[in-house]
Amino acid sequence: MVTLRVRIILDDDTLLGPGKVALLEAVAATGSISAAGRSLDMTFRRAWELIEQLNVAFHQPLVEGHSGGRAGGGAVLTPFGREVVQHYRAVEAKAQAAALPHLEALAAAIRPPTS
Amino acid sequence: MVTLRVRIILDDDTLLGPGKVALLEAVAATGSISAAGRSLDMTFRRAWELIEQLNVAFHQPLVEGHSGGRAGGGAVLTPFGREVVQHYRAVEAKAQAAALPHLEALAAAIRPPTS
Repeated sequence: MVTLRVRIILDDDTLLGPGKVALLEAVAATGSISAAGRSLDMTFRRAWELIEQLNVAFHQPLVEGHSGGRAGGGAVLTPFGREVVQHYRAVEAKAQAAALPHLEALAAAIRPPTS
Repeated sequence: MVTLRVRIILDDDTLLGPGKVALLEAVAATGSISAAGRSLDMTFRRAWELIEQLNVAFHQPLVEGHSGGRAGGGAVLTPFGREVVQHYRAVEAKAQAAALPHLEALAAAIRPPTS
């Protein structure tokens, strides 16, 4: 199956691609940047940097931290962060659908993997 | 302006993205892998490897070398190579068009670059 991988160029320095979107989704699922990073084999520092790039690129934060409480701090995907994820997933699906005839033509011309 | 960058995943090992497509177009324009590579700030070895990856991934070659003659050898984009380039450029344009409302929504939410 021939598929697309889509990156959105927000500005010269900031891309929104499958890795960052998976990280945002993992923050929503785990409630923590470190747990989200871990689930994607990413250091806390790397996960934090990627999220910070996005938080700085937009007018509003996508992820907000909250400290203290029983859980000892954590992070949430904001409603705006959720919108950005939805935009990316919609772009991915619509791009794939629009490209389908071309992807099928390419798939028919590919040499099947040996083994 | 928020734009898309599209990579086509041909198989686990082979991607077709803007770099390889620009290289194929440069081969067509220059008639030579080394000149094409040079025009994209790429070593001959790197340009040759990228083209070889594609030639191996498909049933037919995208670029064929010819040696000798007055020009002392060179390379051409085959009709099939031209088709692959056209598929990629069509995917890029259709994906961008399909994604447009989402890209516009993201553009409206981006912080303008400082400076």
